[in-house]
Amino acid sequence: MRAPVSPPPATVGRAQVGGLVGLLSRESGETLIDQIVRSVVARIDDRLLRGGARMPSIRAFAAAHGVSAFTVVASYDKLVATGYLDSRRGAGFFVRERPSMALHAHDAAASATGGWAHGGLGGGADSGSGAGGTGGRAGATTAGRRALSAFDAKPIDVVWLVRNMFRQMPYQQMPGSGVLPSEWLDGAAIANALRAVSRQNPALLLNYGVPQGFLPLRQQLQHKLGELEIAAAPEQIVTTAGVTQALDLVAREFTRPGDTIFVDDPAWFLMFGSFAALGAKVVGIPRLADGPDIAQLAELAALHKPKLYIINSVLHNPSSTSLSAAKAFQVLRLSEEHDFIIVEDDIYCDLHPGSAVQPATRLAALDQLQRVIYLSGFSKTMAANLRVGFIATSLERAERLADRKMLTMLTSSDIGERVVYKVLSEGSFRKHADRMRGRLDGIRAKTIRQMERVGLKVDQAAPAGMFVWADAGCDTNVLTEKAMAHDLLLAPGSLFSPKQLPSTRMRLNVAAMQEPAVWRFFERELGKS
Amino acid sequence: MRAPVSPPPATVGRAQVGGLVGLLSRESGETLIDQIVRSVVARIDDRLLRGGARMPSIRAFAAAHGVSAFTVVASYDKLVATGYLDSRRGAGFFVRERPSMALHAHDAAASATGGWAHGGLGGGADSGSGAGGTGGRAGATTAGRRALSAFDAKPIDVVWLVRNMFRQMPYQQMPGSGVLPSEWLDGAAIANALRAVSRQNPALLLNYGVPQGFLPLRQQLQHKLGELEIAAAPEQIVTTAGVTQALDLVAREFTRPGDTIFVDDPAWFLMFGSFAALGAKVVGIPRLADGPDIAQLAELAALHKPKLYIINSVLHNPSSTSLSAAKAFQVLRLSEEHDFIIVEDDIYCDLHPGSAVQPATRLAALDQLQRVIYLSGFSKTMAANLRVGFIATSLERAERLADRKMLTMLTSSDIGERVVYKVLSEGSFRKHADRMRGRLDGIRAKTIRQMERVGLKVDQAAPAGMFVWADAGCDTNVLTEKAMAHDLLLAPGSLFSPKQLPSTRMRLNVAAMQEPAVWRFFERELGKS
Repeated sequence: MRAPVSPPPATVGRAQVGGLVGLLSRESGETLIDQIVRSVVARIDDRLLRGGARMPSIRAFAAAHGVSAFTVVASYDKLVATGYLDSRRGAGFFVRERPSMALHAHDAAASATGGWAHGGLGGGADSGSGAGGTGGRAGATTAGRRALSAFDAKPIDVVWLVRNMFRQMPYQQMPGSGVLPSEWLDGAAIANALRAVSRQNPALLLNYGVPQGFLPLRQQLQHKLGELEIAAAPEQIVTTAGVTQALDLVAREFTRPGDTIFVDDPAWFLMFGSFAALGAKVVGIPRLADGPDIAQLAELAALHKPKLYIINSVLHNPSSTSLSAAKAFQVLRLSEEHDFIIVEDDIYCDLHPGSAVQPATRLAALDQLQRVIYLSGFSKTMAANLRVGFIATSLERAERLADRKMLTMLTSSDIGERVVYKVLSEGSFRKHADRMRGRLDGIRAKTIRQMERVGLKVDQAAPAGMFVWADAGCDTNVLTEKAMAHDLLLAPGSLFSPKQLPSTRMRLNVAAMQEPAVWRFFERELGKS
Repeated sequence: MRAPVSPPPATVGRAQVGGLVGLLSRESGETLIDQIVRSVVARIDDRLLRGGARMPSIRAFAAAHGVSAFTVVASYDKLVATGYLDSRRGAGFFVRERPSMALHAHDAAASATGGWAHGGLGGGADSGSGAGGTGGRAGATTAGRRALSAFDAKPIDVVWLVRNMFRQMPYQQMPGSGVLPSEWLDGAAIANALRAVSRQNPALLLNYGVPQGFLPLRQQLQHKLGELEIAAAPEQIVTTAGVTQALDLVAREFTRPGDTIFVDDPAWFLMFGSFAALGAKVVGIPRLADGPDIAQLAELAALHKPKLYIINSVLHNPSSTSLSAAKAFQVLRLSEEHDFIIVEDDIYCDLHPGSAVQPATRLAALDQLQRVIYLSGFSKTMAANLRVGFIATSLERAERLADRKMLTMLTSSDIGERVVYKVLSEGSFRKHADRMRGRLDGIRAKTIRQMERVGLKVDQAAPAGMFVWADAGCDTNVLTEKAMAHDLLLAPGSLFSPKQLPSTRMRLNVAAMQEPAVWRFFERELGKS
C-alpha cells in the first residue's frame, strides 16, 4: 500500500462558499472583517484550505454571506497583508503556498531514496503526500545515519525523531506517538479557562511575572502533591516550560561538562540529546518490570560516580511499568551511598489508576524531596501547547533553580500557568483524568491481545498507561523504515537506548493503534494473521 | 525619611463590602460564584486585599450584592479550597497570609542591618514594609557581597538585582527600572488579542506547536524586518521566550566552556550571569557615544579570539546611544578579520524615532544576516509577560537554533505568539509605538535638564530612548544603598560592568523619574538643589 496521491489543489467552488466562514454576527463585538479573516485563517492553519486553492470571487463571497463587497475586499486585503492569500492580477485570490518548513532542506539533495521522504514539520501535508516526495529530510536512512555515529549518545537521531513527532500527520498513523488523541483531552475546559484568563485585568500581563512561577498555581500544586504524599510548600516549587525545560534546568544546575548522568535503559529519548549537548556522559541502567536492575545500578554507580539519576517511577516511558516499593527503597539507599541526586520524572502521574490496580511508589513520597527532585507537568493530560510543567525540590535547590531559570529566560509566561491553575482549581480535572484512564482501560488489554496475535511479543504487559514496550522479533529500525513507506510513524527501540543500539523492541501507543491500516501493516510485515 | 510603618491588617467593613467585587452579571455566561471568586482573587493578587484581612460575613456580602447566602458560601468555600481564604471556626473568613516568596529567607539570619531589607519578590509588600523588616534578602550589603567576589563576572550580584526588578514595588520608586510604566503600554490591545485567541479552535492548543515558532508570526516578522532593511524568510526566524532565552540559546549553540564572549561595557547585566554560568569568559568593549571603541575592539579581538560579540546597536542599554554608520562598518570588518559572530540585540528597536532624529545603523541591515545574528522582542513595547522574542539569522543557523530550542523546551507556547501576531497584524502597533515615543520625547530633554540641576552629570545625552547613563560623582553602590533605605531602587553602574567594578555612573529611566520623592533624594544626597 502506497500513500495516496494527493488531489490537485481544490478551487473553493460556489457551492462551498457558504461553509467557508462560520456564522457571521453583527453583535459579537468583533467586526465582520475580523470574523471573516479569523475564520479563513483558522481554515488555512488547520489545512482545511490548502495552498494554491482559489478563493471565491469577491461577489460570490459577499452574496453567500450577505455582506458588502467592501467588507470582502478589506478582508482579502488583510489576508494578503498577513501572508495567507496571494492576489494574482486578473485571476483572483489564492491561498498562499506555505514555504516548506523542512528544517534540513539542504539534506534533500544528498539522496533520493524513498524511505524517509517526509517534510519536516508542516511539509508533509503540503508537499510530501506522494511517496518519495522531495520535501524535507529526504535521504539518509537510519542505518546510514547510525553508521556516522560512534558509541556515544548522538543527539542527531533524537532530534530527527522528535522533529517527526511534530509533523502534521494524522494521529491514527502514529503508533509510535507519545501523546493521547487530542479528542481525549478536555479542549472545552482549556478554552473556558483561557477565556476566563483573557477577561482578567490585562495589566497583569504587561509586566514580568516572578521567576518561580504564578503563586496561585504553585499553591494548587502543593495540594496536588499532598495527595501523592509529597509535602512541598509553594516556595519549593518552580514552574517550567514542560518537563523538558525542567530536565534542562536541573542538568545545567547540578552537572558540569564531563559529569555522568544515569537514565533508565530504555528511556525517553529527548534527554539523551539534551544531556549530550551539555557535555554530560549519559549511562543507561537496565529497566526491569518493577524498576531498575539494582545490581547494575550499584555497580555502575560505584564505577561512574553519577551526579543525577533520571527515572520514571510511575508509568515508565516506554514500558508503562512502575516502581515497586522494594526497588524504590533500594534506589534511595544507593543514592545515599553514592551521593547522587534522583530526578523523578512523573509526567504520566495522572494516568496512573492508583496502587490498587498497579503498585507504584513515588521516590519523592519516601524521601520528601531531600535527595529527590520531582518533576511533572500537564502536557500529556491537559494541553501540550500550554507548556506548563514544574519542579518540586528542597527550598535551597528550588532557589538555585529559580535563579537558573531567571538567567535562562527571566520568567515563564503567566498565561499558560493561569490556565492550568484555573482548570485545577475548578475541580473538573480529576473527573477528566478519570475519564482518560477509563478510555485507556477500555482498550489496553484488548489491544495488547491483538498485538500478540499479529506477532508482537509483550512480556512486560503493565496493566495501565498508554505505552507498550513490544518485541517485534526483528530489527525495529528496519521495520520503522518500512512503516514510513506506508505513512506510519513507529518509535523504534534504538531511540530509547542511551547508546542508540539497534533493538527488536519498539514503543507502541495503545490509543494510536485503533486503525485497521496499522494492524494490516504488522500482519503483513510480521508474517502472522 | 524612613519607610512608613504598614497599617495593621484591615477588616473589610460593611461600608466597603459593595466595592469588594465588581458588578455581578447574570447574563455574562459566567456563574455568579465564578464572578465573585474571580473578583476576590484579583483583589488579593493585586494586594488590594491583604493577608489577614477579615472578609465580610456571609450575610453582609449577600445583602450588599443581592445574591443568596448559598452563592456566597459556595464562593468562600472555593476560595478556601484554592488557598485564598482561611476559614476560622466561629470567627469567619480571612484572607490567607501568603508565605513569603523571599528567595533567600535563610540569608535573613546572617545580618539585620537596614539597607537591603526588602522581600524578594512579593515579600516586600506583605511583610517588608517596615524598615529593617525580616522578609527576604535582609542582610548582606552590596559591599559585603562584592567582597566575596574576585575579578571575574559573578552571577550572584546580577541575580540579586534582577530579583529586585521583579519585586512588587511602585514603578515611580524605581528610577533604575528597565521598563516603561505599564500605563504606557496598550493593555487593551493585548487583552483584545488574547480574547481573540481564546475564541479560536481550542484544539490548536492541545498539541505541541512547532519548534521554530508560530508560522504566521514569523511571516509577520519578515515584514517587520523588511522595514528595517533586513531580509529574512520565515524559515530564518526562530521564536524565543524573550531576548533572554534568545541570548541563552545562541551562547549555548555557538560557544563552548572557556570560550570568550565580548559584550559592551557597560551592558545589560543579566547576560554576564547567564554567560558565566555557561563557563564563558566575558570581556567588555568600552562603549562610546557612537558605538564601541574600535581600537580596543581590534586589540582585544586579536588577544581573546572571541566567538561572539553581543551589541545593542540601537538605543544601547544603559546609555540609549546608537551606533554610527562608520562604526557599524568597522565592527563588521573586525568580525570578518577575527572571525567572530555578532549578536545584535535590538530589543529597543520600536522606541527608536528614526534616523532623522538620531542616526542609527543596524548591523544586520548591512550584513544581511551572514555574520550577524539579530535578536529582538516585544517585552518592552507590548507586554513582558507574553515572553515573545525572536532570533533572525542564516537558514543554517536558524535550523541549529531551532534544534537547540527543541532540546531545551520542545517548543514555546503558541498563545503568546498568537497574541503578538494578532497585535502586529491588526496594524495598531505602529500607532502605539509612535505614542510611546511621543511620551518619551515629551519628558526626556526636560528630565535630563533636571538631572543636571540636582548634580547628575549627563555627558552622553542621547536624544531618544528611556535610559540615561548619568554620572553621580560618587560611588553609586553607596548611593544605591542609601536609596534603598528610602524605598527607591537604583541601578548602580557596577551592575553594568562586566567586571562589576564600582562606578560613579548609574542607569536612570526618565519615565520612572516623575515623582518629587525621587528628586528630593538626589537633591539631598548630591548636595545641590
